[in-house]
Amino acid sequence: MSLAKNNWDLEPPPIQSEARPTVVSLKSPYLLFFGDVQDYGHAKTGLGLIQWRSELCVGQLRLPECRVDAGLPDLDVAGALSAGAQSMVIGVAPGGGAIPQSWVESLVLAARAGLDIVSGMHARLSDFPEIVEAARKSGARLIDVRTPPKNLPIGSGKKRSGKRLLTVGTDCAVGKKYAALAIEKEMRARGLNVDFRATGQTGIMIAGSGVPIDSVVSDFVSGAAEMLSPSAPDEHWDVIEGQGSLSHPSFAGVSLGLLHGSQPDALVLCHDPSRTILLGTEDAGGFELLSLSESIEQCLGLARRVNSNARFVGVSLNTSGVEETKRAALYERFARETGLPVADPIRDGVGSIVDFALSE
Amino acid sequence: MSLAKNNWDLEPPPIQSEARPTVVSLKSPYLLFFGDVQDYGHAKTGLGLIQWRSELCVGQLRLPECRVDAGLPDLDVAGALSAGAQSMVIGVAPGGGAIPQSWVESLVLAARAGLDIVSGMHARLSDFPEIVEAARKSGARLIDVRTPPKNLPIGSGKKRSGKRLLTVGTDCAVGKKYAALAIEKEMRARGLNVDFRATGQTGIMIAGSGVPIDSVVSDFVSGAAEMLSPSAPDEHWDVIEGQGSLSHPSFAGVSLGLLHGSQPDALVLCHDPSRTILLGTEDAGGFELLSLSESIEQCLGLARRVNSNARFVGVSLNTSGVEETKRAALYERFARETGLPVADPIRDGVGSIVDFALSE
Repeated sequence: MSLAKNNWDLEPPPIQSEARPTVVSLKSPYLLFFGDVQDYGHAKTGLGLIQWRSELCVGQLRLPECRVDAGLPDLDVAGALSAGAQSMVIGVAPGGGAIPQSWVESLVLAARAGLDIVSGMHARLSDFPEIVEAARKSGARLIDVRTPPKNLPIGSGKKRSGKRLLTVGTDCAVGKKYAALAIEKEMRARGLNVDFRATGQTGIMIAGSGVPIDSVVSDFVSGAAEMLSPSAPDEHWDVIEGQGSLSHPSFAGVSLGLLHGSQPDALVLCHDPSRTILLGTEDAGGFELLSLSESIEQCLGLARRVNSNARFVGVSLNTSGVEETKRAALYERFARETGLPVADPIRDGVGSIVDFALSE
Repeated sequence: MSLAKNNWDLEPPPIQSEARPTVVSLKSPYLLFFGDVQDYGHAKTGLGLIQWRSELCVGQLRLPECRVDAGLPDLDVAGALSAGAQSMVIGVAPGGGAIPQSWVESLVLAARAGLDIVSGMHARLSDFPEIVEAARKSGARLIDVRTPPKNLPIGSGKKRSGKRLLTVGTDCAVGKKYAALAIEKEMRARGLNVDFRATGQTGIMIAGSGVPIDSVVSDFVSGAAEMLSPSAPDEHWDVIEGQGSLSHPSFAGVSLGLLHGSQPDALVLCHDPSRTILLGTEDAGGFELLSLSESIEQCLGLARRVNSNARFVGVSLNTSGVEETKRAALYERFARETGLPVADPIRDGVGSIVDFALSE
């Protein structure tokens, strides 16, 4: 068994996805494990992987209590092996990030059968002796994608070549990863030289590489972000997955370190208009969201410390909670407030945002 | 031997220093180890400890190559034991935080003799088998004060009772710890109910407790800061040691997480007027410092997210590089720019700043 805790390469990956060394080196195709998850929100890791890399997903493994159906064939470990699976990816992210005892038998069976186990949980696979033992016997790898690289550098603030776009949010969980992936896809479809740069566990599973930025020791966050989007040809775009929100009292420091290290030329503000208070702040009395224009002003003030040309190029809305009849007025209002193209990536695509990003 | 890597108490310490459980539980008095350090700047950990807790320091141990003299009696391990020493504290912080091989013999001798070894280095004492073995045999403890507590909470943003003062800086290494310690001392001398809250290794050695904030995983920085200054009686002051600078591209995220978690009522801006570019940014072309008023505006904009009453109460200058004849004009200029009391804690004390902090 090779415990893959430190299998991140510290060398900046080359900029072409095709040529990039698979620093996490997930072996596809995947069997997605949904355990006993009760709702689709907590299954977002697996659902995201299917959405953006469906060609790599051969089936799902669900415990009897599972109440989520990702629409893949239900396979047991033997069936997944027959279908060619090389890894079992934990597609669930329960609160707290623990690995419940009810999953261990399935993880042991998969590891024993030689499937790599890929986890984005806070808990470490290597903390479960029975999983470690099963993997040791079969040669399977245990890959914790939340474990950051060792020996990360401190941020330098040095200007790097190439163009960078970072998605930021008025709150957590407002579609920053989705927007970044949609923008990468749109740019790639237009023939641009582009890479998606992942900063969270689902993004890393989708991209096959990245840095789990919220797991990095605070002193090294901006350095990790610098490493994530290295110098590149002038016309190359890195589209970087944002984390947290500069106005969220729990996570603003993570967001600022990522912003400074990313040195973005272009920023996209992600927003959920149905959100009235910041996620997770109910117990604190509820923090009101900043307005879009306040968010933009705050972010630019900080971003221009590292890139005097930083500007916003669009607003990405999650309008799933908005009535159809109110949609047009909402877009109109936000466009007027910000002077930017406004789009819901799921309904509208991100063509207008990419148009604006490419304009001078 | 009890490896003291996880000997931090997660319970918020009670607010009275006298009654506070010594979560790091350093045993005094101390023998200070200066190794082969070549200059006073890199010996600041030990020098700071002597400055603020001289009554706890019985001697210094220096290798022949050492070029620093902290003014304590030179003692070997046997001499230190005779003088009552209970711990040997590494008083040096070389760049990179490694423990050089040239120190290991001294550390082994001290551990073998039963002295606890206290280190603020990035490198872990427990990574040296010969030190571990010596400590195991004698029962000495190996205490790495840079190792943060486990199971830190995520920041909640919940308002806490009591008053908090945080020192912030226009740059790194501009006297934030010194200012905080001086303010604590001044407040204590006035009979106020006050605690110094340490966020860096030297501060933790001085206070005997604290959280090494730049070693905390980024997701938990504001939570760690919240834990560091728990709810307290309305009249109690926590004086919190700042870290980094909101305008430093390497460390701003750390500073913002600490700011949000600290919920300061009062802020003191620390500044070194001889500094023209941010420390460590030469290779990046040199980042200019923000002006004092810009720094104040930026910090208040972010601080008021968690405490709408946050305000600055003073400017703490390091004027060691300022000519005597230019001092008055400099104070005058900064006082006019900020409307705040301006003082060099070393030359002037911090009485004027504490006066202003206590005014409504």
